[in-house]
Amino acid sequence: MLGEPRIGDVFGELLRDAYAVETGIGPRPLVGGRLPRPVIEIIERDDGLINGAPAAHYLAGPDDWQPYDHRAVDRVTGSVLDIGVGGGRIALHLQARGVPVTGLDVSPGALAVCRRRGVRDLVLGTVDEHATGDRRYDTLLLLGNNLGLIEGRHRAAGFLGALAALARPGARIIAHGTDPYGTTDPVHVGYHESNRRRGRLGGQLRLRLRYRELGTDWFDYLVCTPEELAELVHGTPWRLTDVDTADAPYYLATLRLA
Amino acid sequence: MLGEPRIGDVFGELLRDAYAVETGIGPRPLVGGRLPRPVIEIIERDDGLINGAPAAHYLAGPDDWQPYDHRAVDRVTGSVLDIGVGGGRIALHLQARGVPVTGLDVSPGALAVCRRRGVRDLVLGTVDEHATGDRRYDTLLLLGNNLGLIEGRHRAAGFLGALAALARPGARIIAHGTDPYGTTDPVHVGYHESNRRRGRLGGQLRLRLRYRELGTDWFDYLVCTPEELAELVHGTPWRLTDVDTADAPYYLATLRLA
Repeated sequence: MLGEPRIGDVFGELLRDAYAVETGIGPRPLVGGRLPRPVIEIIERDDGLINGAPAAHYLAGPDDWQPYDHRAVDRVTGSVLDIGVGGGRIALHLQARGVPVTGLDVSPGALAVCRRRGVRDLVLGTVDEHATGDRRYDTLLLLGNNLGLIEGRHRAAGFLGALAALARPGARIIAHGTDPYGTTDPVHVGYHESNRRRGRLGGQLRLRLRYRELGTDWFDYLVCTPEELAELVHGTPWRLTDVDTADAPYYLATLRLA
Repeated sequence: MLGEPRIGDVFGELLRDAYAVETGIGPRPLVGGRLPRPVIEIIERDDGLINGAPAAHYLAGPDDWQPYDHRAVDRVTGSVLDIGVGGGRIALHLQARGVPVTGLDVSPGALAVCRRRGVRDLVLGTVDEHATGDRRYDTLLLLGNNLGLIEGRHRAAGFLGALAALARPGARIIAHGTDPYGTTDPVHVGYHESNRRRGRLGGQLRLRLRYRELGTDWFDYLVCTPEELAELVHGTPWRLTDVDTADAPYYLATLRLA
């Protein structure tokens, strides 16, 4: 098969290069060894859709955030676990405000960038792995669309259970999601229908990330409505207590430990 | 096989969206139906390397060109065939200077964008197809790295022969190329070596382009040194008369009909 990537730390390499472009620290990617090459994350979907997105937003300061990110950090209380800390933009902001925050990520390269940028408390691993330890938090953040980590029906109870194991009594999840069904684009509408025919949620995306010679394995990433989320939460230790749709189709969901 | 694209007019769709973003004419691509989505061309290589590049440069005016593009258009004489006219940036500039210019492209969508932008004389097809007609030119332009259309040893004589059939007596080719061998990046150095082991030129890239759900077939695109070019030109109706390396590793090659 032509053009198959090598499995590796896609996100880490991407962030390292984005950080080099932003700061001049480390070699910057070049075209022909001369002109700067933009750092672009590539996202493939299993139906053949592919999109590129400039990586700079992973390092963006609050002035360049979307409004829902500001409202999300304003809802934080107590000690915080930033799940999928990425380039550390949220963790750095909370840390500067004096909020105790831990950054969690499966990407060693992402954690290296966070460390260089000054994030002090970092953990490498999945939520399941971290939940086997003894650290507990008051706020669990799933920003940057990371509500998607719920994956789908098969994974929701396990994922939310691991989050419950990481939670102090009364803890909350603050999660950023997107309603996927506002589109009339046949590429997306057809994908949602094909998903449902296979017993999947409409917005249960099967994706892989690529950067230069590296790719991830294919993984599920869930884009769902607040109503679908409510169904997935039902029967778990969490209650969906608030949905902020001020920036629809994007929303912030707040879940509280029942 | 997960994630295989549908074959289609990748370049035309890309340019149509880039044009919509630039002008507000036609629907602009959005993320979640709300935030603007950057228009990014995705280039896959057969070893698994993938790169994204913002498409805006295809529509850029002279103020945003690289210096070699300015020197290329300053070398033009007589009637011009702009091979791979793309978004029409070179053709529009020549047209505004009163130079008779024909834009040739295999992408119907690219020609549609050129037409809307005001390029008057456009032909759909390959150089071989166009050479079967009776139009002849004084200058044949291969800008935007389109020296790559030589593909490799198997295609060089045929391609240069078709260009000769399109040429008036004394005509010149002005072509933009890149020396691929200045890099020490193991991803590229290894690719060059693997190519040579298979009897290909080191910089004979096997690529496909992708945009959203569309992809091209895999094709060869040659990145070669002026010395390799000289060998490929040998025995054809053309003579390599000048190589401008002021912006190395990029160069402008001038070939004259022998």
